[in-house]
Amino acid sequence: MDTLSKAAQPHVTFETSPERYRHWRLEFDGPVATLSMDVQEDAGLSPEYRLKLNSYDLGVDIELADAIQRIRFEHPEVHAVVITSLKERIFCAGANIFMLRGSSHALKVNFCKYTNETRLAIEDASEHSGLKFLAALNGICAGGGYELALACDEIFLVDDGNSAVSLPETPLLAVLPGTGGLTRVVDKRKVRRDLADFFGTVAEGVKGRRAVEWRLVDAVYPTSQFKDRYVKRAQELAAKSDRPAAGPGITLGPLDPEVTQDAIHYSSVTLEIDRAKRVASLTVKAPEGPQPSTPEEMLQVGDRCWALRAFRELDDALLRLRLNEPLIGTVVVRTQGDSDAVLAVDEMLVAHQGHWLVRETIHFIKRTLKRMDLTARSFFALIEPGSAFAGTLFELALAADRAYMLDDPEQPNTIALSAMNGGPLKMSNGLTRLETRFLGEPDRVDEVLSRREGSGGQVEAGKPFDSQEALEAGLVTFAPDELDWEDEVRLATESRAALSPDALTGMEANLRFAGPETMETKIFGRLTAWQNWIFQRPNAVGETGALTAYGSQARPEFDYKRT
Amino acid sequence: MDTLSKAAQPHVTFETSPERYRHWRLEFDGPVATLSMDVQEDAGLSPEYRLKLNSYDLGVDIELADAIQRIRFEHPEVHAVVITSLKERIFCAGANIFMLRGSSHALKVNFCKYTNETRLAIEDASEHSGLKFLAALNGICAGGGYELALACDEIFLVDDGNSAVSLPETPLLAVLPGTGGLTRVVDKRKVRRDLADFFGTVAEGVKGRRAVEWRLVDAVYPTSQFKDRYVKRAQELAAKSDRPAAGPGITLGPLDPEVTQDAIHYSSVTLEIDRAKRVASLTVKAPEGPQPSTPEEMLQVGDRCWALRAFRELDDALLRLRLNEPLIGTVVVRTQGDSDAVLAVDEMLVAHQGHWLVRETIHFIKRTLKRMDLTARSFFALIEPGSAFAGTLFELALAADRAYMLDDPEQPNTIALSAMNGGPLKMSNGLTRLETRFLGEPDRVDEVLSRREGSGGQVEAGKPFDSQEALEAGLVTFAPDELDWEDEVRLATESRAALSPDALTGMEANLRFAGPETMETKIFGRLTAWQNWIFQRPNAVGETGALTAYGSQARPEFDYKRT
Repeated sequence: MDTLSKAAQPHVTFETSPERYRHWRLEFDGPVATLSMDVQEDAGLSPEYRLKLNSYDLGVDIELADAIQRIRFEHPEVHAVVITSLKERIFCAGANIFMLRGSSHALKVNFCKYTNETRLAIEDASEHSGLKFLAALNGICAGGGYELALACDEIFLVDDGNSAVSLPETPLLAVLPGTGGLTRVVDKRKVRRDLADFFGTVAEGVKGRRAVEWRLVDAVYPTSQFKDRYVKRAQELAAKSDRPAAGPGITLGPLDPEVTQDAIHYSSVTLEIDRAKRVASLTVKAPEGPQPSTPEEMLQVGDRCWALRAFRELDDALLRLRLNEPLIGTVVVRTQGDSDAVLAVDEMLVAHQGHWLVRETIHFIKRTLKRMDLTARSFFALIEPGSAFAGTLFELALAADRAYMLDDPEQPNTIALSAMNGGPLKMSNGLTRLETRFLGEPDRVDEVLSRREGSGGQVEAGKPFDSQEALEAGLVTFAPDELDWEDEVRLATESRAALSPDALTGMEANLRFAGPETMETKIFGRLTAWQNWIFQRPNAVGETGALTAYGSQARPEFDYKRT
Repeated sequence: MDTLSKAAQPHVTFETSPERYRHWRLEFDGPVATLSMDVQEDAGLSPEYRLKLNSYDLGVDIELADAIQRIRFEHPEVHAVVITSLKERIFCAGANIFMLRGSSHALKVNFCKYTNETRLAIEDASEHSGLKFLAALNGICAGGGYELALACDEIFLVDDGNSAVSLPETPLLAVLPGTGGLTRVVDKRKVRRDLADFFGTVAEGVKGRRAVEWRLVDAVYPTSQFKDRYVKRAQELAAKSDRPAAGPGITLGPLDPEVTQDAIHYSSVTLEIDRAKRVASLTVKAPEGPQPSTPEEMLQVGDRCWALRAFRELDDALLRLRLNEPLIGTVVVRTQGDSDAVLAVDEMLVAHQGHWLVRETIHFIKRTLKRMDLTARSFFALIEPGSAFAGTLFELALAADRAYMLDDPEQPNTIALSAMNGGPLKMSNGLTRLETRFLGEPDRVDEVLSRREGSGGQVEAGKPFDSQEALEAGLVTFAPDELDWEDEVRLATESRAALSPDALTGMEANLRFAGPETMETKIFGRLTAWQNWIFQRPNAVGETGALTAYGSQARPEFDYKRT
């Protein structure tokens, strides 16, 4: 059912900036920023659908993600964000249905994954950065529009006799709300399940007092009072923030990668694509040259600081890989350079994590690594002489499905941990990658983190592990010697590439997230997996399915067998 | 890809008993029972596949579930169970692939759900009934065979140079292990994720010392010592049990329902099927006549005791509905009779829950209600005058997606709670249904449970709520009056029946399990949803898919696009 032409499934890039926004207006008034949706109908990623009624496609969401990111880094003086709309009596109609209908299964899945990550980034800013979000729903708010509101800390709805919140996906389109709506309704807003059941099946949604009583929104106000109320509330939310009273922030400049047919080269990251083998090679370089040693220096260096720039590049590379290179099944991950330089950066970050810019940088690294955990490709880390798998960069090996480490006495080859492996970079499940890895031997976490320099020496993280030590400590999967290395790595990569990509996606989604589940893992595990199932079912996408029939005169016809 | 004939997708019944087993032998030696798999190749549910190498179909699993159940109720003197095989050098080859290949999508899904419930019942017996399970793997143990072992408390593997444990589903069939394997490997046995990744992609599996080192099994022993070792260990496990030193148990007799074209009538449960409307009516009657007031009386009455019998009947009705009535999308749930009689049974159960038979009965009720939570049909409870939605039977209304309660001053209509709603009947998420319902207002749980008789009276559970009180307390969804009742209920049922069954299944799977996730909910949420997705993908079930190609000369051909 891929009914859009090739142009509708374009080669996507993810960088933008406010002066280029076509769908959002970002305004500042002291500690409160207002982010207003004003989607330009004819500026979708494809000309084959029109983004009516503030409906959105991936391009609209890329701008939203950019705006949130820039507020965090560029505007530390902003303490609260109002998300509203410039269209009269319309907040947002949700994801554009004609876009969804015309998208391949893979594009639907990737679209939902990206929009989920954007909404989780809003919640991450609220939880960790002292930035609160208020959804000011000035009109109808349907589907993905309500899911965006659900990602905010509070939801105000105008009480004009008409404006309602709704999740019409199931009754109208025979799919699920794809951006965490069901999970957030019952798990975040804790709406009673029977009320949520009713709400999820009535296309017209719920408005007014009932919406408040059912916990679907926090407050309703008549049109005459609406703006005053939400402005006042945003100021109250802003007053509680621990962000700086004034700027400056730092400017996130363009990444300017060099893009060729088979590679993307950034300053610290390279992604090389071998489409014939269906393997990509991802290399991250350690810092070269001096790095800031204080937050003040970090402010001066701005976006050229390695810790931020390398992970912005990695984030961009992962997103391009996901959307634009569907045939690449395996990613070989390497690092290069001076491990000590990485450990020095880690030391600075950990020492100053109370500073707002350091905090933002750490949480950005964390989100990028989560993006890797959630990328439906196999990652194999290759730890070879000259690599820099230390501290934060060792997280790449921990995030990988396997790590191979060359064991050759002739060529020194080590890995090292830092305090960055011990807490700041938590996965979606709420645990660090080391904690998740050693779920069965929890004492190991402290053992490997508190490795001592010398026999009676004091605790000093960062003492390197050679291949045998790393293998014994459980930090790498295999440590082949120089005779076996090439064959073993080649065989592993080739045999991986031969397996069913769907089974691998399912397997990895189940093995990567051992331990506790959180709202976040529920959204990506339970909800997304069900949605992906439904996105393939004839009742949604078949010839007479509801998503196919939407907007035409045809009524959907269902196979009513329950599964 | 439904390649089996109609005969392969038979009308299934779920009752059996040891003298009728064709695939298992159950033997007793004091406190240790041995349950040996010896699958009869030509005795599958369909003649179109042969159950070679101790591979299994639903019929084999029905016997396994029956055996576990009977050990719990009929043999309280059994404290540990060894699960092994009578076939030389073969423990179990897993679910039969030709059966899977020939099954409809719905049958695959229902097969996996039932086998998951059987394995969880093993873990339930271990956790709650003092019955420990030891898997004695006397030979190859692949796929579902290893997943059965994973459900046991301990796993011993023979070290004969050949016998391995394996999950070959992904490399051989392009599907996932469908019975909790991936989840239990990383979450129960806490195998490191990179080792699990390797293990999950090598068809030949892992054996010997490596299987122990990787935590895949607990011990390996050479053939000469194997039996002695597992017998000894089973005796040690048995010695720790709190089950009675001696019997008698009670015998689980046949349910003998009266089955007609459109209904199944049991002694306390009736299931009526309206295929034209795609609606079933499920009615559970309160106890009639005297019920046991002590455990000793319960032992005498045996399986005729209402608490056990009514829920055995309900369990059977739910299973038949799932497998044999795929077109029924909505189930209207009613109760009938004397609420006080239900409350009296609850009082007895709670007062004596330390007694083994009472304990087994309560846990059986709990498992049956979980079966309802996990049934992919919409449940609407209708609370009308003459109903008996009290205590344990009120759990049916709490398990329903919605509850409608008639509010007619002319006709008294009440519900009531008991201590059975306050703890013993936990859902898969580890919470009671009341706790899950009131996640947003946790104080309500105690409020509704400790409703007082009169104004200054002492706490007395069971004081009934009339319709308005129940509505205000949040215990029912809607309370239409006598003028609206008929239309509102009819409209709700009809409009539910018109929605896409797939979207409803996905929606309900996400709304029913608010709050924490457990290994159990992970298996049914995350893992099952991914498996269902993969069970539809052309790479598994298409013309050139791996499940389709298995056993033929053809090599599978994949679309390598990653999603």
